[in-house]
Amino acid sequence: MDQNEPPVVTFSPSAELPPLSDQELAVLREVGRDWPAGLPDGGCRAEALPLDPTLAPYRTATPGRFSRIAQLDRFRAEAPDQLVAESPDGGGSPAGRAAARARRIVLGPPLGSSAVLQERLRKLVALPVLSSDVLSSVAYGPEAMVTILVLAGSGALGLSLPIAGALVALMLAVGLSYRQTIRAYPHGAGSYIVASDNLGPRVGLVAAAGLMMDYILTVSVSVAAGVDAVASAVPRLTPWSVPLGLLVIALLLAGNLRGVRAAGNIFAAPTYAFIAAMLLLIGAGLVHAARHGFATAPPQPQPVTHALGVLLVLRAFASGATSMTGIEAVSNAVPVFKPPEWRNARSTLSWMIGTLVVLFAGLVALIHLNGLVPRANQTMLSQLARLTFHGGALYGYVQATTALVLLLAANTAYQDFPRLLFFLARDGYAPRAFVRMGDRLVFSNGILVLTAAAAVILVAFRGRTQALIPLYAVGVFLAFTLSQSGMVRHWLRVRGAHWRRSLAVNGAGAALSAVVLLTAAATKFAEGAWVVVVAVPAIIFVALRIRHHYDTMHAVLAPDTLIGAAEDQENAERPAQVRHLAVVPVARLDQASLRALAYATSLRQPVFAVHVSPDDEEDERFRRQWDSWGDHLRLEIIVSPHRAVIASLAHYLQALHALRPDVTLTVVLPEVVVKRWWHRPLHHHDAQRLRRAVRDLPGIVVTSVPVHVPT
Amino acid sequence: MDQNEPPVVTFSPSAELPPLSDQELAVLREVGRDWPAGLPDGGCRAEALPLDPTLAPYRTATPGRFSRIAQLDRFRAEAPDQLVAESPDGGGSPAGRAAARARRIVLGPPLGSSAVLQERLRKLVALPVLSSDVLSSVAYGPEAMVTILVLAGSGALGLSLPIAGALVALMLAVGLSYRQTIRAYPHGAGSYIVASDNLGPRVGLVAAAGLMMDYILTVSVSVAAGVDAVASAVPRLTPWSVPLGLLVIALLLAGNLRGVRAAGNIFAAPTYAFIAAMLLLIGAGLVHAARHGFATAPPQPQPVTHALGVLLVLRAFASGATSMTGIEAVSNAVPVFKPPEWRNARSTLSWMIGTLVVLFAGLVALIHLNGLVPRANQTMLSQLARLTFHGGALYGYVQATTALVLLLAANTAYQDFPRLLFFLARDGYAPRAFVRMGDRLVFSNGILVLTAAAAVILVAFRGRTQALIPLYAVGVFLAFTLSQSGMVRHWLRVRGAHWRRSLAVNGAGAALSAVVLLTAAATKFAEGAWVVVVAVPAIIFVALRIRHHYDTMHAVLAPDTLIGAAEDQENAERPAQVRHLAVVPVARLDQASLRALAYATSLRQPVFAVHVSPDDEEDERFRRQWDSWGDHLRLEIIVSPHRAVIASLAHYLQALHALRPDVTLTVVLPEVVVKRWWHRPLHHHDAQRLRRAVRDLPGIVVTSVPVHVPT
Repeated sequence: MDQNEPPVVTFSPSAELPPLSDQELAVLREVGRDWPAGLPDGGCRAEALPLDPTLAPYRTATPGRFSRIAQLDRFRAEAPDQLVAESPDGGGSPAGRAAARARRIVLGPPLGSSAVLQERLRKLVALPVLSSDVLSSVAYGPEAMVTILVLAGSGALGLSLPIAGALVALMLAVGLSYRQTIRAYPHGAGSYIVASDNLGPRVGLVAAAGLMMDYILTVSVSVAAGVDAVASAVPRLTPWSVPLGLLVIALLLAGNLRGVRAAGNIFAAPTYAFIAAMLLLIGAGLVHAARHGFATAPPQPQPVTHALGVLLVLRAFASGATSMTGIEAVSNAVPVFKPPEWRNARSTLSWMIGTLVVLFAGLVALIHLNGLVPRANQTMLSQLARLTFHGGALYGYVQATTALVLLLAANTAYQDFPRLLFFLARDGYAPRAFVRMGDRLVFSNGILVLTAAAAVILVAFRGRTQALIPLYAVGVFLAFTLSQSGMVRHWLRVRGAHWRRSLAVNGAGAALSAVVLLTAAATKFAEGAWVVVVAVPAIIFVALRIRHHYDTMHAVLAPDTLIGAAEDQENAERPAQVRHLAVVPVARLDQASLRALAYATSLRQPVFAVHVSPDDEEDERFRRQWDSWGDHLRLEIIVSPHRAVIASLAHYLQALHALRPDVTLTVVLPEVVVKRWWHRPLHHHDAQRLRRAVRDLPGIVVTSVPVHVPT
Repeated sequence: MDQNEPPVVTFSPSAELPPLSDQELAVLREVGRDWPAGLPDGGCRAEALPLDPTLAPYRTATPGRFSRIAQLDRFRAEAPDQLVAESPDGGGSPAGRAAARARRIVLGPPLGSSAVLQERLRKLVALPVLSSDVLSSVAYGPEAMVTILVLAGSGALGLSLPIAGALVALMLAVGLSYRQTIRAYPHGAGSYIVASDNLGPRVGLVAAAGLMMDYILTVSVSVAAGVDAVASAVPRLTPWSVPLGLLVIALLLAGNLRGVRAAGNIFAAPTYAFIAAMLLLIGAGLVHAARHGFATAPPQPQPVTHALGVLLVLRAFASGATSMTGIEAVSNAVPVFKPPEWRNARSTLSWMIGTLVVLFAGLVALIHLNGLVPRANQTMLSQLARLTFHGGALYGYVQATTALVLLLAANTAYQDFPRLLFFLARDGYAPRAFVRMGDRLVFSNGILVLTAAAAVILVAFRGRTQALIPLYAVGVFLAFTLSQSGMVRHWLRVRGAHWRRSLAVNGAGAALSAVVLLTAAATKFAEGAWVVVVAVPAIIFVALRIRHHYDTMHAVLAPDTLIGAAEDQENAERPAQVRHLAVVPVARLDQASLRALAYATSLRQPVFAVHVSPDDEEDERFRRQWDSWGDHLRLEIIVSPHRAVIASLAHYLQALHALRPDVTLTVVLPEVVVKRWWHRPLHHHDAQRLRRAVRDLPGIVVTSVPVHVPT
């Protein structure tokens, strides 16, 4: 279920702030040695001020005009210099507080970091938890296969048995292959990890891209199939299948943002109930068939739209292979088993494969014996159950457990996708935001991305399960192939005990998966597989560009001892290297400007004021104000006959920086802050516009001195 | 055309920066007296640094990584301490420069402030320039009247002559009334000014709201009627009338943003051509009618849908009154006449009224004589011209000049609406942005608002002229009534020569206008007048709230000598009042953080660092980094077990401020700046989020120390 390395470290919330390497620490030490040069002894350490809000009674008797913004008693002291914050309340405005309250009702209160824990599962619980994805696939896999075959008329349906046989062989081969992976990676190994580890990070990215498509489609397909199961039982829901699907996705979103724990019992019950339902269905069906001497009912004649040929058989095979999606879950989740982990995981995998084979083979056989053909408004599983149980409670039980297990399967993707993005982000291939844990200790950003993508795909394909199937197989088998190929490479490198046998098993798994991958991509290209064939390289390209950007950034941000004082103020890392010049743009000599001038001057560094004037007349008027005030600072006036205040100031600052690159320019901006958002259009926001304009200029520091307007 | 007070001062671009009052200057002087207390002698005057980029060769030999952002030689020195900026080029990014280029192609190069000038018009030029609005109204006014009458069947059409007679009497009365206004306000007087001046600012606001609706509807109605004129001649354009109307509005927008000068000749030709066309039409029609002994052709029988009654007659009267819209143009524009301004304006007004009466009466008479009734796809003017000239070149001439003069009428609103908003904004009743002149010396913001409103109304009423008429009359006659009532008050106060006669004339004008206003509002309420009846109070409410907000802001921003040092750091206006404490939030000890720490420390004020840690483990890891570096500053660690970095910091800063309100907290934020917008999602933007979070907190200054990531 997860893509773990040793588990405790990886999902800690502090992964967002990775430690510095030894080399970086050494550079830091060197930088720090020169720091105090030119400073008064300890003069800036701020020891004299009480900085700890828990140490003093800071609640003022008369609340100021902003005091109702937030409660102030939000910290408790645990150690000297260490405060512990209480849970946040959504910040300043009433709207913010209301949003925080609503959020808390929907998502629950924030969880402390210490709540990250790793549950250990018994085999009997692990089996249902990890197999809802793969077992639920039998709800749509056999139908997907028959849907293709029937294109060649009802006569072609006889081929479903040999194709199913080939698929069972493939299941066993892939299952055996994953047993090898479990032994070799006892800490768990998703396809991304195994492929990166053995075949290089770029191949790992290919596997990751395939997996991402797989997880997104798992949600779309499982939700669509679950809605189908419900709509088969309650036909009047059929026209509402897309809104129903979106509703289910919204519920999954809310549940996962809230942090649905993989609590064993919740997940175990529906899966076991589903297995029981299927076994009951198969058993009853076989008994019924035995009574009729296993005579095959002739299917309704179907129109022939495609000639029966190798291509059609291959397409049916690739469609049926969607029954195997989710088979990799156990190998990803080895660490969640009770010790000995890998042994327990391996036997769970065997049980899972066994169950899968029984259910798949049994359903295909019964569909064939009863001569069922796909229908628009009813799944084949529903047809089979209706036929076997003649409607009634047992039929309802089958449909309900099917829908439930499909919901759980979709939920599995909600666990796996954000974790995959976490690993990608940790390695610099995805935005850092995916490393950040939300206040419910889940990777909220990954959950949101998955939801958006799955919802878009569901709507684009109008919720039709069979239309989604062609997209599904490609991503899954891409990841299978790369994971198994990685294992081949692994055995060639490591050569442990029985390595030749393991090599052979994984080689066979890789080869078979590759065959299915190519078959699926080639035969279903036009029907939708092209989406995946285009998306995977696109994802890889974006991931590589992201990595490149982060590499550049880290190079820029690494502490660096080599850069001298005068060359680039932006690299000044010791106080003595910083030479100051403060600029105060002034439009009128009002309270805001006077405060900015006082602030800038009080820093005791060189200061001057700049005024942009639209014409000479205003220029003189402003000089008179300035002289009335006392002409305490040097004043530069820029006449901008085209009335461009911001551009003129930005150009002036840029020219000044070019003139004196050894000086750090601090632009001290008087800024009027209003309390209500609807008052914002009444003000000019020149401060914000100037900040944006000088943002890209080097060596310019921007200081906002606010003056607040109440009401 | 404009709402001038003495013209040269009012539209200067420096109106945006109004001068300080004498009292404010006195306060400023007092504030300035105490300024140098506690400062070293002239120590902060920055005299030593060369601040003038024109004085030194600042173009660096090796261009830095940002040097291609803008050309640096953008200033020339005109006087010591005074630079003149060249025209701006759209700032930093390539996209910004491309946008600036495109803008320059569409709108032309920026104009210098000195290009504001006031053209003086001869009477022969002033007449067409100022009368396109009112004269073009005859294109839809008579039809609007007949459209109502015909609801009572073709038998009611005979009433059009007496109603037209009443309207002519009204035109003469209102015209006489405005002659009085011209004499009394030789500097020009829009309804807003006259009503504010004489009846108080709130009544002025009512007039302004009416005028705003009037100007917006002038654009919508004139454009719709112009498109009708074209579509009557080329019927296959009829289904495209809304897109065509929007296209015309877009052209008006572009032309006016570019700054269409009211150059006499451009405006004179189409208006005279239109007058000639109408006179030709009326003349030919009368000759034709005379040949038939002025026999009235029986109109086609029409279905009777409304009973003929007083209400219907009043509705027809109010609809016909839309022929008078634009009559106030001359009185607004007195200063543009050659001297003696008021005499020339007055005789122009008389000529205008005379022409209006002739055209209106002639057209109504001919429509009646020929028994014309409104048709869906053809205006009545087009029917009349087709009938009189039997199609052909003369018919085309009539339709073309009609469309052209309607376009000019819409353009008049593009001159008047932004100026009205300028006056409102200058008085604090509209956002200050409407005072700002664009780089083409036009009030771009007002032009944009007018365009948006007119386009919305055009689309909402699907471009049907007759559907817009009910909205139109209310706003116009509201402004007429208040303007004339203001004149009544004026004469009662001033009592100049002949004041009794003037009083009587204006009183009659006011009374008649009020009758039309009430008639229009009452009889057309359900058909659309309710829009105006709702919009006018809404505009007034918003204007009063805006004024209240500005008053509050001015009270806060007025220089103030009374506030002591320790009470509120936000009011500190002398350097000695500011006590500093700098806080540097640090996430990792990278180059960005080191630079921020160096910057903060180099200010030689008390400094400390804050680190927010998600758990104790990361806390210790960070302390080790800090110690490696040398522990040069005091470090506070906030453990935020809910991983809320921004909220914890904001609460901490708020608590600190509550603890020590006598200290100005400066938050020095290390900020990573990326060059491409598509790199932004890769970074966390904690600096920007913290800035937003502390924006509303008092006494907290935020300083951004940028580190730029190239590429």
